[in-house]
Amino acid sequence: MLKLHGFPVSNYYNMVKLALLEKGAPFEEVLFFSGQTPQVLEVSPRGKVPVLQTEHGFLSETTVILDYIEQTQGGKALLPADPYAKAKVHELVKEIELYIELPARTCYAEAFFGMPVEPLVKEKARTELLAGFATLKRNGRFAPYVAGGQLTLADLMFCFSVDLACAVGKKVLNIDFLEDFPQAKALLELMGQNPHMAKIVADKEAAMPSFLEMMRNRR
Amino acid sequence: MLKLHGFPVSNYYNMVKLALLEKGAPFEEVLFFSGQTPQVLEVSPRGKVPVLQTEHGFLSETTVILDYIEQTQGGKALLPADPYAKAKVHELVKEIELYIELPARTCYAEAFFGMPVEPLVKEKARTELLAGFATLKRNGRFAPYVAGGQLTLADLMFCFSVDLACAVGKKVLNIDFLEDFPQAKALLELMGQNPHMAKIVADKEAAMPSFLEMMRNRR
Repeated sequence: MLKLHGFPVSNYYNMVKLALLEKGAPFEEVLFFSGQTPQVLEVSPRGKVPVLQTEHGFLSETTVILDYIEQTQGGKALLPADPYAKAKVHELVKEIELYIELPARTCYAEAFFGMPVEPLVKEKARTELLAGFATLKRNGRFAPYVAGGQLTLADLMFCFSVDLACAVGKKVLNIDFLEDFPQAKALLELMGQNPHMAKIVADKEAAMPSFLEMMRNRR
Repeated sequence: MLKLHGFPVSNYYNMVKLALLEKGAPFEEVLFFSGQTPQVLEVSPRGKVPVLQTEHGFLSETTVILDYIEQTQGGKALLPADPYAKAKVHELVKEIELYIELPARTCYAEAFFGMPVEPLVKEKARTELLAGFATLKRNGRFAPYVAGGQLTLADLMFCFSVDLACAVGKKVLNIDFLEDFPQAKALLELMGQNPHMAKIVADKEAAMPSFLEMMRNRR
């Protein structure tokens, strides 16, 4: 059986977890934290979460894991079959990751853990996030899902990236990224009603106190 | 026929160009520069290069384009057929992009265009690049190609990212990232002997003076 290594506070972990739940693929969760110890690096070459343990070995990098699950597991399709339509979904996944998730991440320490971030970092995050949200507005279809009428991998990247980026906007940058983006706001709400989301949110909330305690001890 | 939009100085453009040449896929090159004008953004949602024009429409994001070409064009395979082996190639592609190309890119302005970069940015690039090269050393097979015995998409990402990251190391960070990494050095040399590389390098050198002139005018 597939084993998903990581922790339920990680947004990338939850992207994979939602994919597995949506597809109805059997899997087991294994508590595993990112780090740079030899033990962690043996499982994850960059010491990151999540990692998927397959019968052939470990896989790192969320988008790689998502594509692998899509290709090897049955159940509901999270990518279109047509190569161009599939590439458009991958394009959206990548744009959301590179231009929203990653710049927002540079400010997570301040937004979520009370650790101040340098002004230069915030300034860069502001510029990149404004361009990132403009890109998503330009290229997303929101009909009602990011890539069109069906739930795809782009929605998984969307819902676990845009929520945190919006929190960074409000808490750190004093910007409401969804102010003029009602279609994104509507999709976040729709994804919030996804039946599997309740479990993911509950697991996250249950894991949060010990995660915050760990973060405090790491400082 | 496929049209590749971009300019021959761009390393991402050259990854796609090498893929098309390796596969023997017919394509046309269209000179196109990144930017944030409405004309550029209509073709490329984030205003970046390269863009692949297909019979169905435009595609952005190099790794998305590479996978699309692989899936739709005949010729030499640049990905293994087995899903796990393919995922391992994608994992390496992603690690090289996120942990080597992107942090090195934050210092390109200083390394290649004489525009000083803030000390904080250099400090972050140094930390990330050291971890990125350690990741590649840990996960790459170099037998002699990054993912094993066959040329794959990981080698395209490798040769057009690691060369620039090494230049950043030497010119900006005073680090030789390949000092204890002979297998990567050997692969860079091997890729330099690739018959299609001569054309790519010649096209790049021919385009460089006007590109540098354009960069000077943009400042």
